[in-house]
Amino acid sequence: MVSRIYNFPTEEYQIRIARTRAEMEKRGLDWIIVTDPSNMAWLSGYDGWSFYVHQAVLLGLSGDPFWWGRGIDTRGALRTVWMEDEAVHGYDDTFVQNPEKHPHETLAELIRQQGGTKGRIGVELDNYYYSAAAHQVLVKELPEAELIDATGLVNWQRAVKSPAEIEYMRRAARIVEHMHRTILEVAEPGLPKNRLVAEIYRAGVEGAEGHWGDYPAIVPMTPSGIDATAPHLTWDEQPMREGESTFFEIAGCYRRYHCPQSRTLFLGHIPDKFREAEKAVVEATEMALEAAKPGNTCEDIAIAFNTTLNKLGFEKDGRCGYAIGLSYPPDWGERTMSFRRGDKTVLEAGMTFHFMPALWLDDGGIEITEPILITEQGHECFSSLPRELNVK
Amino acid sequence: MVSRIYNFPTEEYQIRIARTRAEMEKRGLDWIIVTDPSNMAWLSGYDGWSFYVHQAVLLGLSGDPFWWGRGIDTRGALRTVWMEDEAVHGYDDTFVQNPEKHPHETLAELIRQQGGTKGRIGVELDNYYYSAAAHQVLVKELPEAELIDATGLVNWQRAVKSPAEIEYMRRAARIVEHMHRTILEVAEPGLPKNRLVAEIYRAGVEGAEGHWGDYPAIVPMTPSGIDATAPHLTWDEQPMREGESTFFEIAGCYRRYHCPQSRTLFLGHIPDKFREAEKAVVEATEMALEAAKPGNTCEDIAIAFNTTLNKLGFEKDGRCGYAIGLSYPPDWGERTMSFRRGDKTVLEAGMTFHFMPALWLDDGGIEITEPILITEQGHECFSSLPRELNVK
Repeated sequence: MVSRIYNFPTEEYQIRIARTRAEMEKRGLDWIIVTDPSNMAWLSGYDGWSFYVHQAVLLGLSGDPFWWGRGIDTRGALRTVWMEDEAVHGYDDTFVQNPEKHPHETLAELIRQQGGTKGRIGVELDNYYYSAAAHQVLVKELPEAELIDATGLVNWQRAVKSPAEIEYMRRAARIVEHMHRTILEVAEPGLPKNRLVAEIYRAGVEGAEGHWGDYPAIVPMTPSGIDATAPHLTWDEQPMREGESTFFEIAGCYRRYHCPQSRTLFLGHIPDKFREAEKAVVEATEMALEAAKPGNTCEDIAIAFNTTLNKLGFEKDGRCGYAIGLSYPPDWGERTMSFRRGDKTVLEAGMTFHFMPALWLDDGGIEITEPILITEQGHECFSSLPRELNVK
Repeated sequence: MVSRIYNFPTEEYQIRIARTRAEMEKRGLDWIIVTDPSNMAWLSGYDGWSFYVHQAVLLGLSGDPFWWGRGIDTRGALRTVWMEDEAVHGYDDTFVQNPEKHPHETLAELIRQQGGTKGRIGVELDNYYYSAAAHQVLVKELPEAELIDATGLVNWQRAVKSPAEIEYMRRAARIVEHMHRTILEVAEPGLPKNRLVAEIYRAGVEGAEGHWGDYPAIVPMTPSGIDATAPHLTWDEQPMREGESTFFEIAGCYRRYHCPQSRTLFLGHIPDKFREAEKAVVEATEMALEAAKPGNTCEDIAIAFNTTLNKLGFEKDGRCGYAIGLSYPPDWGERTMSFRRGDKTVLEAGMTFHFMPALWLDDGGIEITEPILITEQGHECFSSLPRELNVK
């Protein structure tokens, strides 16, 4: 096997697998089919942009996991997974995007070969990379097996990060700081937005403090003015304008580990309303982060934030944060915990979040956000950027 | 309604809808639920990075389509779709990534409100953005409706491009040329790969000839040496090396329209084997492109290519091309036609493809590819880059 630099030692993958198996046993699962690329990478090390075709990691209660995917991608799997070559299984290219047959027929065959014919098999039922058709094929091909919803099973095992993972996120934090500094240097009235985004990309991939930049799971979201009243618009060629705010929802990424952070830039004189919103967000953030400590819940953070924010005359719908770490497109969140009323998950040291108190007002948006690590004592902000509206 | 610059006039969207409805009627469908972001954009104009939550365009046999998605994204929808505000429906943020309930419960409610309770409803069963869970929820919530597999229904309507779409792809072609020229300028032995990728990104987003660059649906794939034996690895910080080949599988993108093109760069003296492979690929490409004309089939191109390639002593597994155009991550292909044996789709003027005769050899890869437009007379290459291995 031609090896390449692994992101983690094999022992770390073994710990992850043990954690996942403990949960599988608790739920009475014999196998789990892992289609979320982040979960696949977390368990096997696999890293490649091949998730546009069907692929999975198949994990049983003993032995190494299997990597299963398109034949031509077995070469990338052999270059990146920690398992032996025999664990890597490819299907014929004629299965690719061919309505006549479906790749999951070959996954069912692999499961049968491994003795899973009558097994209780967990599937990630609500995942981008597990289509309704894939599920129907497995139901048909494995009539004696029981397919059980295991959406998020692996994601939840990822919640508490290892020291090595936290180190990767710290490197990603240096990168996102570098990206925001680049924005402050380059942005000015008249500059076409795409020119600015080009510099953001360059800074992010260059990396910082000797650490190279990987691609974030979401592209830069950089809307100005009225476009910034909406959360998920990207960019175009319109020039930046005096008197307009622009928010930059971006992330640094190191070896697939993310540190997202948003800041807002106002060109010219800031209207009082934006200053008031800034003050409210910063004060509410301070109260929220005081609640960010082991033993408290996700909901506690949201309540602390919203209570203070409302007191200061602003409202925010929706959650104000989510778990972060290893990710692939289309989302850099982990899709487990959310900072919102009703999420009673107890915080533990080693959990990592994007505290994301964005306000989308009628005439613009304000995002001043903090990626955080829960520590034994409380929390730590990954980034050292000043918590304020930027003005230029 | 606060409008923004639309990508196409409303009339063009109406033509697209008429084409889609004709196919719906042929299949006896009353409604189609469109979850593929590319299909959503093609029908409604919607453009935003929000496909990490559940969303759809709902199209019936009359009236305007509905945009349905997360509440906070209705603001982005109002900024980008051509329909009236009433067509935009948002669901509450508590439905987001919450195992207690599912957004598709609210889509079912919208369908019921519109009289679709007992309808024949097409769904994109094998799509990244239509999960097995979403399907189960609709089956449960609409017990009297019939959910019918309509994977690819809209994608196929996109196959023949309008003059406006072709113009966007020409602009994307200028951008990918600019990206490849940047690579030739910047690449040299010792340069960390991520530094080079940073420049590729910058060039792509800067754009070319006055046209700004949008984000391609796939990140740059730029493996060197032994990594280039695998198709879908991305990059790291390793320096480029004398005596190694690197392929660059990249795309220019203009307003979500893609022009992918790959080239291969060899640093230092090219071994004979690579020159032979180059000669074979270029010659086989010429034969293949002679077959690229209206009336011929997709298969004809693949057969012409493979026959010539084999004669010259090389083999290629898998398809050697696919349809391209409008796209969102994770794939810039349209997932309809493939250049491979068995695909008997007849070529028509206005169809656009990435002819992609990549060779992944035991010790490196060669990709010299051509984005093409089928014309009345034959075909046209979108890009003017010389069809050769680059050496530096």
